[in-house]
Amino acid sequence: MAEFRKDPVDGRWVIIAPERRKRFSAAPTKISPSTSSEHCPFCPGNESLTPGEVFAFRNPDGKKDQANWRVRAIPNRAPILRVEVELQKEGIGYYDKISGLGANEVIIETPEHNQVYSQLAIDNLTEIFIVYRERIKDLKKDKRLKYVLIFKNYGESSGAVLDHPHSQLIALPILPKQIAEELRGAKDYFTYKERCIFCDIVHQELDDRDRLVFENKNFLAISPWAPIFPFELWVVPRGHRPSFEESSDELLRSLAEAIKIAMVKLDVVLERPHFNLILHTIPFDVKDSEDYHWHFEIMPRLIQIAGFEYGSGFYINPVPPEQAADFLRRAEL
Amino acid sequence: MAEFRKDPVDGRWVIIAPERRKRFSAAPTKISPSTSSEHCPFCPGNESLTPGEVFAFRNPDGKKDQANWRVRAIPNRAPILRVEVELQKEGIGYYDKISGLGANEVIIETPEHNQVYSQLAIDNLTEIFIVYRERIKDLKKDKRLKYVLIFKNYGESSGAVLDHPHSQLIALPILPKQIAEELRGAKDYFTYKERCIFCDIVHQELDDRDRLVFENKNFLAISPWAPIFPFELWVVPRGHRPSFEESSDELLRSLAEAIKIAMVKLDVVLERPHFNLILHTIPFDVKDSEDYHWHFEIMPRLIQIAGFEYGSGFYINPVPPEQAADFLRRAEL
Repeated sequence: MAEFRKDPVDGRWVIIAPERRKRFSAAPTKISPSTSSEHCPFCPGNESLTPGEVFAFRNPDGKKDQANWRVRAIPNRAPILRVEVELQKEGIGYYDKISGLGANEVIIETPEHNQVYSQLAIDNLTEIFIVYRERIKDLKKDKRLKYVLIFKNYGESSGAVLDHPHSQLIALPILPKQIAEELRGAKDYFTYKERCIFCDIVHQELDDRDRLVFENKNFLAISPWAPIFPFELWVVPRGHRPSFEESSDELLRSLAEAIKIAMVKLDVVLERPHFNLILHTIPFDVKDSEDYHWHFEIMPRLIQIAGFEYGSGFYINPVPPEQAADFLRRAEL
Repeated sequence: MAEFRKDPVDGRWVIIAPERRKRFSAAPTKISPSTSSEHCPFCPGNESLTPGEVFAFRNPDGKKDQANWRVRAIPNRAPILRVEVELQKEGIGYYDKISGLGANEVIIETPEHNQVYSQLAIDNLTEIFIVYRERIKDLKKDKRLKYVLIFKNYGESSGAVLDHPHSQLIALPILPKQIAEELRGAKDYFTYKERCIFCDIVHQELDDRDRLVFENKNFLAISPWAPIFPFELWVVPRGHRPSFEESSDELLRSLAEAIKIAMVKLDVVLERPHFNLILHTIPFDVKDSEDYHWHFEIMPRLIQIAGFEYGSGFYINPVPPEQAADFLRRAEL
């Protein structure tokens, strides 16, 4: 059974998840992803290999947990965290732990096993983002949960284990450290300036244009000022929008258009890089935040994280974001 | 010229280091390490390929920057940070940056190109740790610097670029985020309990023994309570020792013995894993800390860090530390 454990010194939580071992080799040696496409549990016709779906877009003649879907959300077969678990907090000597309460779902993005993310149709991407929204809304009803992290790992370097296009969702009973730090920074800024820091970033990047990659009606894509990875790209709403789950279908279609351009550009410049794509949004218990803005961060995984990064918590990035933005702006679609 | 940039939202600093690009391919595509051993700049006889040494242990008949050394510290050929740079802090609109002041050195651990870290002699390891100590003492004289991070990357998965056994040192004008968080946690604990948290961890692990891998006269090796990586191992002094650079030669010999056992055990259980080894110690401007304890963290790199980790700042570890400790305890040397 998985559990959260807190490092007594730096306060960071780690999920100890022995169940995950089954997915790797029995011996505790080098762990490498399986990339076989045979018997893919995410392919249409293999629905019986997965737990029953929690949401799907399907064609009119389709039935639940059968083929003929377009986007399908399912609980993870080997979930790290489970909603059936009772929330328990316990001290072991000086140490703290919390039971493995939460949720762990997979959003299968397309029935096509070999489809490339940047080649998904706008309709398809829009439906994927609507599924994100609906799953957040649903999980938010569980008052024991504080946050849903939605992310996509593509390619071995990104930590992906299965090839079939999919994203993942992990709902947590504690606020993620990274989000807590962003919220704290945004709050401090608001206290000082009475303005949302993301709104200010949007204005400054539209003025400067050095790090602006492109813009559409509702979004801009920027190389952020201090990217931790080369060619890191943020897709940020123009207007002040704290919570992703409040997005309309229309806004999510505009997001799909922006993400598609971003991904095509990255594929052109970096020759289809492995990447992580991560949604950052406000926690469940925050309402109408004046200071935070949901956004997507896309991190191409071109370099390994080494001792310096783990020891310092800082990053070394060999590509200035102004240069990355310039490459990406000029990439022909 | 490299510079530090601060993310305006989460406050994390990133070193933007365009010089590092030269070491990779000109095209901004997949960056992979060079592992050729021909013309290795770290091999004896090739001293002219590196900047002049800043410290070395050599045999009596040896001359500076010539062969016949046992351990050799040199400035990095393509340093990320430089001591010649003036410390400048600047605001660009809402953004902050600091000039690339610092130091970036390489400690060549042995003349033997193909030597394996766990097979280094105790004398050799002791001298490596003495070089760490002497370099910290020397760099500490520069009052603009706040911290020296010393680390070793071994193997491609760890971010290592060159094969010849070496560790690295990066001196910084700002306190690393990770160290700041550890110091804050340790201080909070001390304020509450009037005890050093590391001393308490030492006592608890010696009592419990579940996560204790081995102990010698001055050190214990433990699988920490909340390890971010499978088989992560900490080597911690038994007594209260805040600053690494105060260590005696005798203590460093005892450390060498402990690190050697730790590395042999990891090599036996994990079949010579890629790893990062990182020294954690107190910052330059802290004296006689009552609450912090230097230690080494060894992180085998068996799994990729994925979107969940970057999005949350949390980690998922499939191997409980009690299980890892059990494997390592039973590994025959």
